[in-house]
Amino acid sequence: MKDKSAPIGVFDSGLGGLTVAREIMRQMPNEKIVYFGDTARVPYGNKSKETVTRFSRQIMRFLQTQEVKAIVVACNTASAYALEEMESETELPMIGVVKPGAVVAAEATANGKIGVIGTEGTIRSGIYSRYIKELNPEAEVVGRACPLFVPLVEEGLWQDPVTDEIAKRYLSELIDIGIDTLILGCTHYPLIRSTVGSIMGQEVTLVNPAYETAKELKELLKGQGLLNDAKTRLGDNCYRFFVSDAAEKFKGFANSIIKYGILSAKVINIEEY
Amino acid sequence: MKDKSAPIGVFDSGLGGLTVAREIMRQMPNEKIVYFGDTARVPYGNKSKETVTRFSRQIMRFLQTQEVKAIVVACNTASAYALEEMESETELPMIGVVKPGAVVAAEATANGKIGVIGTEGTIRSGIYSRYIKELNPEAEVVGRACPLFVPLVEEGLWQDPVTDEIAKRYLSELIDIGIDTLILGCTHYPLIRSTVGSIMGQEVTLVNPAYETAKELKELLKGQGLLNDAKTRLGDNCYRFFVSDAAEKFKGFANSIIKYGILSAKVINIEEY
Repeated sequence: MKDKSAPIGVFDSGLGGLTVAREIMRQMPNEKIVYFGDTARVPYGNKSKETVTRFSRQIMRFLQTQEVKAIVVACNTASAYALEEMESETELPMIGVVKPGAVVAAEATANGKIGVIGTEGTIRSGIYSRYIKELNPEAEVVGRACPLFVPLVEEGLWQDPVTDEIAKRYLSELIDIGIDTLILGCTHYPLIRSTVGSIMGQEVTLVNPAYETAKELKELLKGQGLLNDAKTRLGDNCYRFFVSDAAEKFKGFANSIIKYGILSAKVINIEEY
Repeated sequence: MKDKSAPIGVFDSGLGGLTVAREIMRQMPNEKIVYFGDTARVPYGNKSKETVTRFSRQIMRFLQTQEVKAIVVACNTASAYALEEMESETELPMIGVVKPGAVVAAEATANGKIGVIGTEGTIRSGIYSRYIKELNPEAEVVGRACPLFVPLVEEGLWQDPVTDEIAKRYLSELIDIGIDTLILGCTHYPLIRSTVGSIMGQEVTLVNPAYETAKELKELLKGQGLLNDAKTRLGDNCYRFFVSDAAEKFKGFANSIIKYGILSAKVINIEEY
């Protein structure tokens, strides 16, 4: 028996996935959300496939205890490394952030040259390239790992000469190649969208997988009869936040991303799942 | 029965503790070392006391399975948050990096103004100030968290205009206060010692706890009759390295710090300890 009123489970290595949760809140205001941020083991971006998959599996098991109706892997690295394995281990509908971004980029490009920026793990996996070439075998996909972007964002330097300088270094090769489409392949990057956008120039389309993921999630839920069409007002506990470390710090940062108010965040020991 | 020929256990959240291991190798060439770097859960610097203590305990249990004769907590954050609790849970001699650095800084200062740079956790704990004031109650100790230094070091930007710019921001307050002694309170920081030194100026003494820790460890082992005075040449397996993730990547970085050659690094699942 499918329960439309059950929450959607969303997880990330830490805070970045809140940009995806925010999009789900915007596009599906009737949906409840259970968010988990693995703040004890963040970041995932420079860790191995084996480790990221083990961590992701623990989180999937935790979210199942919360009786979610679907799971959103709101982390590019976990989507790249762990999504396919996890999908084969559950009946729940599951969606990552990579495929929706890849689909839109493959449609958006005019000259067939697409850039992807992300963590070392996401870029090394080559997953964006793989998905894009399934749709557009002629496309040229160039990836660039940007390991300093996450710490710069978490330090609050969203608009800062240092972030500009680092971004110029990371993006120069993509500019030289002449890409016309750039995927923001890490959930932190929408927060420095204006810096990236001004370096790349107006002719380059920036693709934000957070937006595309929420859109595809809505279609997925609708298709499976799981979209919550109740008109009742969502109560204060419609959004629940769990972390593996330091709930107070999470709340501070989260409130700068999500305007709906993070009422509380609970710490759990994810290693027990 | 004390075994002088047993190895010394050294651990860190990741790679930084290798600067301490390197000092032990230099100052005590007869000693074997078992090093553990928690690369699956690195960094510790922005995580809570509870989490860092739980992780440190797991590592202590792992090192005990390696029959070490002493444990060096080669991570400032773990020394600040977890050392005292761990000491009460084992018979093994245990030493952190904080106290040796604090002792030297308290002796080195002429004007009584001491600066400490480190991770958020180390600075928030106030532990350097506490140790220094036990020795010199009149001292003024000013801490400054430098969260971007670790990612900049790990990105290889040891000498770079961006690192200069960030360092100037972090250090300006300490310059204004007129400190004459600065503790490099994170095991990564010796790697950007020249950047920090040129900003602070020659009048400011930089204290490297790695060096002081190795020195105090030698005294500690000698005092307990545990110093290895055998004259036999150390074999290839005198240094053993364990990590919780991505051994190949660890080896690459480790070889840039330690010139003795990292022959192999083995991945273990630290959550099982």
